[in-house]
Amino acid sequence: MVSYLVTGAARGLGLAFVQKLVALPAEEVCAVFATARTPSPELQELVKQSSGRVVIIKLEVTDEASIKQAAVEVEKKLGGKGLDVLINNAGVCQYTMDGVKSMDDLEHSFSVNVLGVHWVTRAFIPLLQKGTQKKVISISTTLASITLARAAHVSPAPAYKITKAAMNALTVQYALDYEKEGFTFMALSPGWLKTELGGGDMADLTAEEGAALSLDIIRGPARGLNGQFPKIYLPGWENTRHQYDGSNAPW
Amino acid sequence: MVSYLVTGAARGLGLAFVQKLVALPAEEVCAVFATARTPSPELQELVKQSSGRVVIIKLEVTDEASIKQAAVEVEKKLGGKGLDVLINNAGVCQYTMDGVKSMDDLEHSFSVNVLGVHWVTRAFIPLLQKGTQKKVISISTTLASITLARAAHVSPAPAYKITKAAMNALTVQYALDYEKEGFTFMALSPGWLKTELGGGDMADLTAEEGAALSLDIIRGPARGLNGQFPKIYLPGWENTRHQYDGSNAPW
Repeated sequence: MVSYLVTGAARGLGLAFVQKLVALPAEEVCAVFATARTPSPELQELVKQSSGRVVIIKLEVTDEASIKQAAVEVEKKLGGKGLDVLINNAGVCQYTMDGVKSMDDLEHSFSVNVLGVHWVTRAFIPLLQKGTQKKVISISTTLASITLARAAHVSPAPAYKITKAAMNALTVQYALDYEKEGFTFMALSPGWLKTELGGGDMADLTAEEGAALSLDIIRGPARGLNGQFPKIYLPGWENTRHQYDGSNAPW
Repeated sequence: MVSYLVTGAARGLGLAFVQKLVALPAEEVCAVFATARTPSPELQELVKQSSGRVVIIKLEVTDEASIKQAAVEVEKKLGGKGLDVLINNAGVCQYTMDGVKSMDDLEHSFSVNVLGVHWVTRAFIPLLQKGTQKKVISISTTLASITLARAAHVSPAPAYKITKAAMNALTVQYALDYEKEGFTFMALSPGWLKTELGGGDMADLTAEEGAALSLDIIRGPARGLNGQFPKIYLPGWENTRHQYDGSNAPW
């Protein structure tokens, strides 16, 4: 009986996480806290079909007060139990068509992709400490790999790459601080997805496929994943451009 | 005849860079633009001794308008010539004594260490394009290496580590965009220095030593250094904790 909290659950990968989680047996997934700035009709529909397992929580990742309020609400709903798994999914990716010099979205990207993840994580740490799984998954991207930057240069999203690299560094700081308590923090690359953030139909996989393959890692054994940067595993895609081979990406 | 611009030149490593540069023959270093939010007496003294080679430029890295104004002033002083070398040295390091969860300086650190470097770099790119060296050195730290994070966990400066990792990612974006024009962008680790930022006397080297060893790399051949993360080289220190072996640090 595992409880999850997913940020950015109104659409895209976040919504797909909620869909896939609620499709699992109630014996495995007892509650999914789906946070959104503005709940979408699709998310509200999922709540109706969920027999009470999906709970929408209002949360704006760029507003620490709203995050603290959300943590209070989740604590009440859990009725003394802990939160088991936190998925930091909310994020933004904007495009800069004229090279890094014209990048004007770095500050906003940082606010959502780094500061938001920091604030959400620290607000839910006390509930996670009471949980049984102590897993914190922050959704990353191989575009954030500085080592692989040359191969990703064609993708015109410098602020996304830079802020997700910072989010990776943040994830490792948490991993090192909390490993003694049995936590597993990972920066997970869910693949290139056909979402609004991912840029649409050119991408490799649907949001549902990305969520399912990510959950294979999230629900799997934690051993060795603390402070790591795993990629999804999709048989047959090991030798393609994005190498969905389940290995850890290099920083 | 090479011209330099050094940000954060009022004290610490920035001041030491200006000292070391102006000590070189005028045939090598024709001008040093020393930028500071508030010029220090030490920097003003250097100007007096410099026979006109050191010019103080007022610049606040968190204020893009002040950066643009500084670029206009430097352009005027150069009288049609380009700027040869930019050293992005201005930075902040604050300490967080109770782990990453208590980190409250991330936004400010980002503003100085990442956004400031981005704004300064793009403001001076047009002058650098007219320069003969086309080198941009952003002062980094091996604490920013995500790969080496475990070894650096003892150092209680998570915001510094995270934002310098982001600055490294930014540096590589510029490196990839401008390599065709013959630019060399590097994230240079100057060693652990006995400066206010470095934490004082516990550190390995003086600011003057760090500046001299950094200039060995900056004044050396650029080949292979674009988009890299070099460490200083100090014979006898290759096998110490900080490995000043001149190799590139891993991201």
